Amino acid sequence: MKRVYLDYSATTPLEPKVLEAMTPYFTEMFGNANSMHSFGQEGAYAVDESRRKIAELLNVKPTEIYFTSGGTEADNWALKGGASAYKGKGKHIITSKIEHAAILSSCAQLEQEGYRVTYLPVDKGGIVHPEYLEQAIDDETSIVSIMLANNEIGSIQPIKELAAIAHRRGAIFHTDAVQAMGSIPVDIADLGVDMMSFSGHKFYGPKGIGVLYIKGGIKPDKLIAGGHQERTRRGGTTNVPAVVGISKALELALNHLDENYRHVKAVRDHFVSEVERRIPHVIYNGDREKRLPQNANFAFEFIEGESLLLRLDLSGIACSSGSACSSGSLEPSHVLLATGLPVERAHGSIRFSFGKNTTMEDVDYVLDCLCKTVNDLRNLSPLYAEFTHNGGKL
Amino acid sequence: MKRVYLDYSATTPLEPKVLEAMTPYFTEMFGNANSMHSFGQEGAYAVDESRRKIAELLNVKPTEIYFTSGGTEADNWALKGGASAYKGKGKHIITSKIEHAAILSSCAQLEQEGYRVTYLPVDKGGIVHPEYLEQAIDDETSIVSIMLANNEIGSIQPIKELAAIAHRRGAIFHTDAVQAMGSIPVDIADLGVDMMSFSGHKFYGPKGIGVLYIKGGIKPDKLIAGGHQERTRRGGTTNVPAVVGISKALELALNHLDENYRHVKAVRDHFVSEVERRIPHVIYNGDREKRLPQNANFAFEFIEGESLLLRLDLSGIACSSGSACSSGSLEPSHVLLATGLPVERAHGSIRFSFGKNTTMEDVDYVLDCLCKTVNDLRNLSPLYAEFTHNGGKL
Repeated sequence: MKRVYLDYSATTPLEPKVLEAMTPYFTEMFGNANSMHSFGQEGAYAVDESRRKIAELLNVKPTEIYFTSGGTEADNWALKGGASAYKGKGKHIITSKIEHAAILSSCAQLEQEGYRVTYLPVDKGGIVHPEYLEQAIDDETSIVSIMLANNEIGSIQPIKELAAIAHRRGAIFHTDAVQAMGSIPVDIADLGVDMMSFSGHKFYGPKGIGVLYIKGGIKPDKLIAGGHQERTRRGGTTNVPAVVGISKALELALNHLDENYRHVKAVRDHFVSEVERRIPHVIYNGDREKRLPQNANFAFEFIEGESLLLRLDLSGIACSSGSACSSGSLEPSHVLLATGLPVERAHGSIRFSFGKNTTMEDVDYVLDCLCKTVNDLRNLSPLYAEFTHNGGKL
Repeated sequence: MKRVYLDYSATTPLEPKVLEAMTPYFTEMFGNANSMHSFGQEGAYAVDESRRKIAELLNVKPTEIYFTSGGTEADNWALKGGASAYKGKGKHIITSKIEHAAILSSCAQLEQEGYRVTYLPVDKGGIVHPEYLEQAIDDETSIVSIMLANNEIGSIQPIKELAAIAHRRGAIFHTDAVQAMGSIPVDIADLGVDMMSFSGHKFYGPKGIGVLYIKGGIKPDKLIAGGHQERTRRGGTTNVPAVVGISKALELALNHLDENYRHVKAVRDHFVSEVERRIPHVIYNGDREKRLPQNANFAFEFIEGESLLLRLDLSGIACSSGSACSSGSLEPSHVLLATGLPVERAHGSIRFSFGKNTTMEDVDYVLDCLCKTVNDLRNLSPLYAEFTHNGGKL
C-alpha cells in the first residue's frame, strides 16, 4: 500500500547525511566530552565545532547556544528558570492562549507556585496582536513568552514588535521557535529576543536534542543542575552524536531554506486550493498569509476529525488532529478554540503538514482519498442528512 | 600508537548490537510515538516494548519506568520534584557528602529555596553507615537520597538498610544507581527504594537517555512539563531510537552480568595488585570489599594527578582525576576529601575504570607506562627528593 506522511510538524525523518555525520560518535569517538584525555577531546572538539556552526548559522555567539534534550526542556528552562531568576522584578508572566503544552504546562506549575500568568488572546487567524500585549503588561511582568509560529495552524507572530514592547517595560522575551526553525528565515538579532527554543527533530535532525539560545547577560536559573557542562548551566553528559546531528541538520536546513520553502509551500498551496475546490463545507483554519509554508489545517463540517484520521490512516495517510503532544486527550484543540472556532468544528479539524520529501503525486493521492472519505463519513452523519434535507440550512 | 581506554565510568562505547537495534528508528520508523497514525504507532510499539523489557529485567512494573534525557535529569527530577511534592511533610532533605554533582547541585538549589539539607559523612572507605542516617533523620525529613555506588571510588552503600530507616521515619528514598546499574546486581524490590536513577551510556547504551524508576504511588512534581508523554509526567517528544537503545543495552548488560563482572573484576584486581607491588607510596582509595568491580582509584604520593593524567594521555592511556562531570574544576575531589584524604593526596589521585573490552594485555601496557611515568614525575618532584634525602621520612 502507498504510504504518505503528512505529519512533518509532529516529527521528520532523520536525513541520511545527518545520520552519517553522527555515526562515528556512537562507537568510535565515543568519549565523554568532559574528559580531559584524547578520547574525550575528540567529542569535545565535535561539540565545540557544532556549537560554533550553529552560532554562525544564526549569527549569534557560540556562548549563547545551550544544548538541551529538546524543545520541551528548552521551553521549561526558559520559563521556569527565567521566572525564578527574575522574580525580583515581579511575579507576572505573559504568554498566549495558543502556546505549546511545554509552555502552558510550565505556566500552570508557576501559577501553583504563586506566579500570576496572563494568557493573551489571538485573533481568528491565530495572531497575537501587539496591542494585546500592551494592555496586559505591567511593572511586575518579568517574562513574556510568545511562540514564533504555531504548531497547529502555523500562524506566525509579530515577534519583533512583541519583544520591543516587553523590553520597553523591562521584561525579558522568550520565543518558542520549535516549528519555525528550519522552515522560515529566523533572524535572532532582528527579532530582538532574549531566549529562543528549538528542536532537532523538526528539521530532519535527531530526536532528543534541542537548543536554548540565551542572549549574553541573560541568566535563567538552572533547570537541570549538575556538572560543568554547558558552562555549568545545564548538567548531564553531553549527547555528542545528537549535538553533531542537530548542527548538521540545521546547516542543511538553512543552506536549502529557500528551495525547501518554495517546494513545501507549492505542495501545500496545491493541497489547499484543491481541498477548497473539491470539498464543500470546509473551513481553512488559521491565517492565510502569516503562516508557515508546511501547514494546512481544515475543519470538515459534519464529521469527527478522529474518524477521518483513522480512515485516512487505513489508506496509509498520516496526518494529525491537534498536535502529537496532545494526543491521548479528548479535549478539542485549545488553539482552535482560542481562534473562536466552535467546539464541534474544532473536533472536525485536521492538520496536514508537508515536508521536503512530499511530492505532488503524494498530494494528489491524499486529495482523492480525502474527498472520498469525507463524502463517506458525511453520508453516515445524521447532522449532514438533516442539513441536506433542509436544502443546505441547519 | 596503542590506545587504552580506562575511563569506562565516564562513558562507554555504544555496543554495536545496540546501534543495530536503534538504526531502523532513525530514518525508517521515524514517527512521533505520540501520533495516532501507523508511522507513530511503529514508534509507540517500540517504546512500549522497551519499557516492558526494562521493567521485566528489573522486576518492576512498566508503569514505574520513566524515560529521561539521562542520569542527571533523573536525579534532578527525583530530588527537586520529590522535595516540592513532599514539602508538606517537611523541608528537610538528607543526602551524602560523596554524591554526584547532579544531586549536590540540586541540593544547593533547594537550599536556596529554603530547604534544609544534611550531607551525611562517610567512613574512610567511602561508606555511609546506617547510624549516620539514624542520627540525622527527623520528623521533617521528606527525602533521603544516597547513591548506590560512588562514581569516583566505587564504594557500594548499604541501600537496603538506609531505605528502611528512611521509611520508618516516613521519608521517601531515592538512589542514584548510575554507576551501579549494569555492573552489579540491582534488586529494586529487595533494596526497597522509592525512586532510582540510571543512565544508558554507562552500560554500553546511547548517551542522552536515562530512566527514573518511580514506585507506584510516589508522585514527584514534574521537572520537564509538557504533553502527554510518560503518562503526562515528563513532556517532550519521545526519543524512540534512544529508548530502544537503552532497553537493548540493559538486556545485554544484565544477561551477561556475571561474566562481565568476573572479567572486569579480574582485570581490575590484577591492576591493583600489580600497582601495589610495583609502585611504592601509593594509597588505594576507597573500600577494598564494598566496591564496584570496574573501579580502581589510587593516590600517588609526591605527584600531581593532572600531570600524571596528561603524561598517560600522551601514551594513549585514558583515565581520570575525579569524575568527568567535575573536570574543568581545579578543586580536589569532594569525594576523596570526604573520606578523610588530605588535600595533597586527593590532588595526586587517579581513577582507572575498566570495561568488558579491557584485556590483560591492555592492563600490562598501562602498568608499564604508569610505573615509568610515576617514577619520572617523582624524579622531578622536590618533595620526593627531600623525602628520599631524609631516608624516607617527611
